[in-house]
Amino acid sequence: MGNEFDLIKKIQQKISGINRNHSALIVPPGDDAALLSSLVRPVITTDCQRQNVHFRLDWQSPEEIGFKAAVVTLSDLAASYAQPVCLFVNLTIPEGISELTLLQLYDGLCEALTLYPCALGGGNISSGSELSLDLFAMGEGSSLLFPLRSKALLGQGLYVTGPLGLARAGLDALERGLTDVPDLIRFFKRPRPRFDAADILLKKHISCVMDISDGLAGDAHHLAEASNIAIRFEIQTSFMPDILKEYCQRFNLSPLEMTLAGGEDYELLFTCEESVFQTINKDLPGAFKVGTCLEFQGTRILNPPLSAHSFVHTVGD
Amino acid sequence: MGNEFDLIKKIQQKISGINRNHSALIVPPGDDAALLSSLVRPVITTDCQRQNVHFRLDWQSPEEIGFKAAVVTLSDLAASYAQPVCLFVNLTIPEGISELTLLQLYDGLCEALTLYPCALGGGNISSGSELSLDLFAMGEGSSLLFPLRSKALLGQGLYVTGPLGLARAGLDALERGLTDVPDLIRFFKRPRPRFDAADILLKKHISCVMDISDGLAGDAHHLAEASNIAIRFEIQTSFMPDILKEYCQRFNLSPLEMTLAGGEDYELLFTCEESVFQTINKDLPGAFKVGTCLEFQGTRILNPPLSAHSFVHTVGD
Repeated sequence: MGNEFDLIKKIQQKISGINRNHSALIVPPGDDAALLSSLVRPVITTDCQRQNVHFRLDWQSPEEIGFKAAVVTLSDLAASYAQPVCLFVNLTIPEGISELTLLQLYDGLCEALTLYPCALGGGNISSGSELSLDLFAMGEGSSLLFPLRSKALLGQGLYVTGPLGLARAGLDALERGLTDVPDLIRFFKRPRPRFDAADILLKKHISCVMDISDGLAGDAHHLAEASNIAIRFEIQTSFMPDILKEYCQRFNLSPLEMTLAGGEDYELLFTCEESVFQTINKDLPGAFKVGTCLEFQGTRILNPPLSAHSFVHTVGD
Repeated sequence: MGNEFDLIKKIQQKISGINRNHSALIVPPGDDAALLSSLVRPVITTDCQRQNVHFRLDWQSPEEIGFKAAVVTLSDLAASYAQPVCLFVNLTIPEGISELTLLQLYDGLCEALTLYPCALGGGNISSGSELSLDLFAMGEGSSLLFPLRSKALLGQGLYVTGPLGLARAGLDALERGLTDVPDLIRFFKRPRPRFDAADILLKKHISCVMDISDGLAGDAHHLAEASNIAIRFEIQTSFMPDILKEYCQRFNLSPLEMTLAGGEDYELLFTCEESVFQTINKDLPGAFKVGTCLEFQGTRILNPPLSAHSFVHTVGD
């Protein structure tokens, strides 16, 4: 690899392209710190993507890795009803990685930040034993509401904004070396942050929201704990996508376990009254019920389904 | 190590202690994102500290590693005339590291954030092959001025706010396994962000400032490039601390090379007219001249001194 400072210059050129249409950055990368436009309700989230933990270079192109890294970070802004403002990226570079690979990684980041408009504020580059991205996103929160996972109320239903388990099935397909299920693999490689769904939930004043990154079972447990309630899962197989059921049938897997334990779907998990959900469902036809919020009496999940456990991030061997 | 979520809870408890006196965090860590109080001039910087690149576990205690990680990140805020608001930390944890070590790391972070008041906004924890911290700091910029490294003017002097080379000498002592120079080693282990010096420079409207993290030679080169000028170094040995000269004599090292190439001093580098410097010097008696800003005619550094090169972060073997 060439000189670190040469690489930084090339990255800065790329970044200046993506930032041309953003007014968020008053002083762009290049100095000790960046200066942003005023933020009334600064919303901050961090995430990371590590080689052989979250991605594999033999499974994903550098563009795909960069794209997904940006999207999974922005997803937390969506789950907080915040509009993206600026993303910062710290890069850890192992020896032997080419400058081209790193620039392609930034192409992926830039693609995501064009789709979900957000400035790219630079970051830090250092050496390390594995390729790794640490991402830090800033957003502008809604003036109406900052949703919390602690706001679930007894008797409310627990809902998700869209299908679950597809990213896990895509990961499974990659692990098996399959090439005939590109649609499934795409769910793993190119998740989408549900800013569209968040807009609808915000309009209905839904106050208990989080994104599903670890898997429904684990994330529902977090929500139950924060809200001091218990959850009873109620998942109808009719809401499981055919593509998931077919894949599970082919390899004798449980679509319910995929739905509960599979992570990285980045759909939003929320609670509300049944009548409110009916109105939401009109605008979000893909949303469906996954459970009910009940009184806590010693157990957070009342019907722990199968051997479902939270998705542990490890795509390595 | 125990469960990741148990560790997160213990860290959140520690963080809540440090945050009790801060009004910056409206929604503290625990949800998908944190919500901060309004920022009129949000200043953002990122940094990282990686095992065997920036620190070694056999040289530094976990507290020292955490303390330094916070300080070197805050230093960029000082160099930008910003007051610290909130620090976020992403942690990469290798197998076999104890929970106690990680909690001690947070003790060090908390110590720094008590000394240089700043909230701790949480972050991300994931596994990896080496211990690593990625830090994101947010500050509130000054209403008077945002300093840039591109603001140096022809004819101005180039100055630093305090002694250079001491952290490099401390690192050298660690590499030699010395135990009889704790004062020098302390400069490497416990740098200080120069918020005090920044206040004085801001009052004098100094508009070209950066911190010295890579070493004077390298950082002056960045400043010269950004300002499209050239630098002639003029460093009087009388400004080199006795402790540095004595150490260099003992091991036949060049104190000038330590001053120029040694990094991690975190003093501020700035340019101004000689007459302005005289008034600054009264409040900052440790400040001194290191060069002059001249016209660029093909070379950024007019008298490349000795074999001095920028400090390369590698404390490993």
